[in-house]
Amino acid sequence: MIETVSRWKSHGGVQGVYRHASSTTASRMTFSVFVPPLAPGAIAPVVWYLSGLTCTHANATEKAEYRRTCAELGLIFVVCDTSPRGEGVPGDPNGAFDFGFGAGFYLDATEAPWSANYRMWSYVTGELPDVIAANFPADMARQSIMGHSMGGHGALTIALTLPDRFKAVSAFAPIAAPSQVPFGRKALRGYLGDDEAAWRAHDSVALIEDGKRFGTQVLVDQGDADEFLDENLKAPLLAEACKAAGIDLTLRMQPGYDHSYYFISTFMADHLRWHAERLR
Amino acid sequence: MIETVSRWKSHGGVQGVYRHASSTTASRMTFSVFVPPLAPGAIAPVVWYLSGLTCTHANATEKAEYRRTCAELGLIFVVCDTSPRGEGVPGDPNGAFDFGFGAGFYLDATEAPWSANYRMWSYVTGELPDVIAANFPADMARQSIMGHSMGGHGALTIALTLPDRFKAVSAFAPIAAPSQVPFGRKALRGYLGDDEAAWRAHDSVALIEDGKRFGTQVLVDQGDADEFLDENLKAPLLAEACKAAGIDLTLRMQPGYDHSYYFISTFMADHLRWHAERLR
Repeated sequence: MIETVSRWKSHGGVQGVYRHASSTTASRMTFSVFVPPLAPGAIAPVVWYLSGLTCTHANATEKAEYRRTCAELGLIFVVCDTSPRGEGVPGDPNGAFDFGFGAGFYLDATEAPWSANYRMWSYVTGELPDVIAANFPADMARQSIMGHSMGGHGALTIALTLPDRFKAVSAFAPIAAPSQVPFGRKALRGYLGDDEAAWRAHDSVALIEDGKRFGTQVLVDQGDADEFLDENLKAPLLAEACKAAGIDLTLRMQPGYDHSYYFISTFMADHLRWHAERLR
Repeated sequence: MIETVSRWKSHGGVQGVYRHASSTTASRMTFSVFVPPLAPGAIAPVVWYLSGLTCTHANATEKAEYRRTCAELGLIFVVCDTSPRGEGVPGDPNGAFDFGFGAGFYLDATEAPWSANYRMWSYVTGELPDVIAANFPADMARQSIMGHSMGGHGALTIALTLPDRFKAVSAFAPIAAPSQVPFGRKALRGYLGDDEAAWRAHDSVALIEDGKRFGTQVLVDQGDADEFLDENLKAPLLAEACKAAGIDLTLRMQPGYDHSYYFISTFMADHLRWHAERLR
């Protein structure tokens, strides 16, 4: 059972926000779905969008400017939260922005106390797809995935691990090698423990080194004025890993763009067209 | 002197947020400006956007989805605040959403204590245009104006009063006849006093009845599922006044749309194209 929080007509389709009791994260989870205008009985491909640190479903829903193009191309667009939240869910004791609430890193935590709720990997790849299939006119045989920053990390690692599920994958300014950067090392150690071997399943560069491949080409946009590029995102490491593995990566360094939704919204239509071509 | 609060590259242009000490409102005012990609030395027409109740510059800047089309058409887009704010500026004593902060109604108050700061008419038609002309590559001979709800009221009343200044005018769900509706009567009485004759300069329907005319055609979009339509917006009164006066109004009742930015963003590109045609 899902509860409708809000529902707006937009660009001829319906933008909704929904809530449900998630058994995976043992918490109530909120997500948004845009359904484009469809003929009665028709179904549409599903584009998954994973957000970055500090975000809820609301950031991309309000600011990513995907509805016009999704309506035009006939794409369902799903935005989930970035962590469990709410009563009984532990957050970072110091209220950090890069751990706990808003910082689930799209993995299943194995360390207490996080392991009871911080199971975003299983939520995003298992429970939520079932919810979407059951409640929306979704063609689950045609899915693709994209994300921003921490969500770019999520989109890449999920697509590398489930290459047959996704017809397209792209990212905006992804955390490409979390094992090697401050944001990632803190989160991976906290959620998965000190054994760095366990981190490799949640690091795109490590996954590629370990033989994983996408089922398709990859598109990444990265602003060259992004304040997180050098220390935490490290697009060059992804480019090197893809080159060494023979993966067809289109990495576009975008001059003057930063890490914000003003960057994402600029290139969203490009990404959606890239996805739509591969979802046909 | 204006201070740059934030500045982002977006859609090839620059979205900025700026602050300055306004002599008109005796307060610090914040506004946003999008400058499209321009050749060196080039100037561009200016589209003014006036927001609705409770908004600051941020709502439209983040959610109205104007940048792609403004970049394509070469339009500067200015969003101002909806009232003075800050230290020493009185707000509604009960914290009402429809009076005081966020509810300036684009008029110059004559009643104490509001008259010292609530001078949004003079700010939007006088001081801020001077600031834009001095600090941005703006072609002030080519201006147009649009707005939403209270800001639709502002756009219509300003364009009726200064018909030679604006090459185009449009509105999303405007408060068309504030003298006749609860939101408007409260604000007009509070800011201008009990003499309803003084209200007519700030009521589109009354201005038209009193002989004012736009310099051009008018475009209005109104959702038929808008929760404020019947009691506070009253598009039919505008349609009747325009018909009686021979004003060329295009009023589009949009089925299923409400009062939100999901409605505005759906039709923003249409409005900008309408403006661009008349700004050529």
